[in-house]
Amino acid sequence: MSNIETLSWHGDRFGTLKMIDQTLLPTELKVIECRNVETVWEAIKMLRVRGAPAIGIAAAYGVCIGIQDLPDDANHEMLRWKLNDVADYLASSRPTAVNLFWALNRMKAKAETLYATKNVSEIWAALFSEAQAIHEEDRHICRSIGRFGQELIKDGTTWLTHCNAGGLATADYGTALAMFFAAAEAGKKIQVYADETRPLLQGARLTAWELMQRGIDVTLICDSMAALVMRQGKIDGVVVGADRIATNGDTANKIGTYGVAVSAKVHGVPFYVAAPVSTFDLSLSEGSEIPIEERNADEICCGFGKRTAPEGCKVYNPAFDVAPAELIAGIITERGIISPVNRQNVEKMVRD
Amino acid sequence: MSNIETLSWHGDRFGTLKMIDQTLLPTELKVIECRNVETVWEAIKMLRVRGAPAIGIAAAYGVCIGIQDLPDDANHEMLRWKLNDVADYLASSRPTAVNLFWALNRMKAKAETLYATKNVSEIWAALFSEAQAIHEEDRHICRSIGRFGQELIKDGTTWLTHCNAGGLATADYGTALAMFFAAAEAGKKIQVYADETRPLLQGARLTAWELMQRGIDVTLICDSMAALVMRQGKIDGVVVGADRIATNGDTANKIGTYGVAVSAKVHGVPFYVAAPVSTFDLSLSEGSEIPIEERNADEICCGFGKRTAPEGCKVYNPAFDVAPAELIAGIITERGIISPVNRQNVEKMVRD
Repeated sequence: MSNIETLSWHGDRFGTLKMIDQTLLPTELKVIECRNVETVWEAIKMLRVRGAPAIGIAAAYGVCIGIQDLPDDANHEMLRWKLNDVADYLASSRPTAVNLFWALNRMKAKAETLYATKNVSEIWAALFSEAQAIHEEDRHICRSIGRFGQELIKDGTTWLTHCNAGGLATADYGTALAMFFAAAEAGKKIQVYADETRPLLQGARLTAWELMQRGIDVTLICDSMAALVMRQGKIDGVVVGADRIATNGDTANKIGTYGVAVSAKVHGVPFYVAAPVSTFDLSLSEGSEIPIEERNADEICCGFGKRTAPEGCKVYNPAFDVAPAELIAGIITERGIISPVNRQNVEKMVRD
Repeated sequence: MSNIETLSWHGDRFGTLKMIDQTLLPTELKVIECRNVETVWEAIKMLRVRGAPAIGIAAAYGVCIGIQDLPDDANHEMLRWKLNDVADYLASSRPTAVNLFWALNRMKAKAETLYATKNVSEIWAALFSEAQAIHEEDRHICRSIGRFGQELIKDGTTWLTHCNAGGLATADYGTALAMFFAAAEAGKKIQVYADETRPLLQGARLTAWELMQRGIDVTLICDSMAALVMRQGKIDGVVVGADRIATNGDTANKIGTYGVAVSAKVHGVPFYVAAPVSTFDLSLSEGSEIPIEERNADEICCGFGKRTAPEGCKVYNPAFDVAPAELIAGIITERGIISPVNRQNVEKMVRD
């Protein structure tokens, strides 16, 4: 992994949020600087920052940026209005990843404890500490997921992953990829097949890059090859990240995850999900309730700076799909592994 | 469909083979002219002409081009040597599509009947007639596949296809797409989902284009979305083409076909193959014996004139996979539908 952080804050209250522009990898490692909330919103919307945990961290800092300019003598009503307005705006950037709403709600809840007794400057400082805490906690969570997850990885085995649930999707180290990193650190020799993950190629651009940076043996395939490599007996296990998990364990993740889960089931390959507890949405009973973002047709028709489908062609472009709980062998969280995946075990692990 | 033919011969013995350069569609409709056998070989290798039946036609004309320059007083040994040399060379362009070998063998067999009694000029004319016959027969075969196949298509249903088995893959009209064209001509209202078909996007570039040209309602999706649209209950049937079919019915077709077949089975969607009898290879007992072409890593890493994976990234790029007979509800040929798909029914339909 490069020494450049996925996200980082630079300066004081009027500082900037820097992030790697993930749309330019692997050919260009560019850092963008967000000085206003619109830039943060655009970065989330356009997937410059992506991955459920990283989106949550970006949104938390985005709240800090959004209320930077409030005058110190603003009253609490003004502050609450402004903060809620900023949070609502950031929440509108992407509908599926629940960590976005989780982080925004955590920031709002923190503010509620402060309005009565603190001034704007003190509240900003406390909210900034909260954003830093979310950021720092994610580092620990990823390490913990890696530790629990790597127990599932036997020496000499080959794994498949879809999209990017790596350091770039989190503070660092990742969720699904954390299992590979931790297994490698534990001295296990592993191989990884990475689905390229159309339309935006996070697997080709980001996962292959991260694994190569860490010296893990990675082979890139098209999404349509995953079923074949499973049939060929090349794959011992699958692990992916998650954008939102319902109470029964149904898991929304990057489009294509469902097909991989179906293939894994048919070929007797265990299919795992790795995600922090903040990815669970206990307000939803099952996966069918998870809102699925549909994105622009151009991602499919003009994905590589070149038109690859006829002008005016009708396109269906859901950004996510849902792997039902019955296809999931286990969900690896920072608190341990949920297995078998069912309502009772999810609630036991996730409820405080 | 445009009025430009997928392949056409222009002129006399020293004429040229023209074909649509399918790598440039849908943004550019360019016709390339082959005046020597190397250009034909390159066009097949680089997929400027692709689709098993179209490759067979191109190879047959390629033989005519390859022996164009023989002097009229060449003896029969020289002619046989040259023709076999040209055929071997053309056969080396792509290893999986059996129609290529079928067409070359047919041309060689034709020549064998003539060496004893005809001169070079007469043999060339007879071989050219044979190539034209292969070309013309394919038109009739496609119409016949369309007629048999459209019986399977109920009015108001929605179908999914992978890659391009359309007019561009054949003389015209196609195999899998022939079913849609014939259904539409029979007044049935149908909808089609087209997998974009990575890495070379024949679905996005060619299938979507052909269906739009004929006014058929087509929706483009990424390959990774096929399982989802089946789960959503949107798909009533799947039909794809084939590059080689073993005696037991195992079918090699464009990479991704196997995953689509698995998904179709899991979701109770009938999965059909449409292919001429020349696609069957009765010298092979089952699919595991079909040689699978592996293609250049750049197709995945730099597919659209832009690098989308890290330099030096390891890639696995099989061009085809095999859908086992037990996943196939029926194989539609120009002689009728093979169903259930098994060794006995294949032999009954295919053996003369």
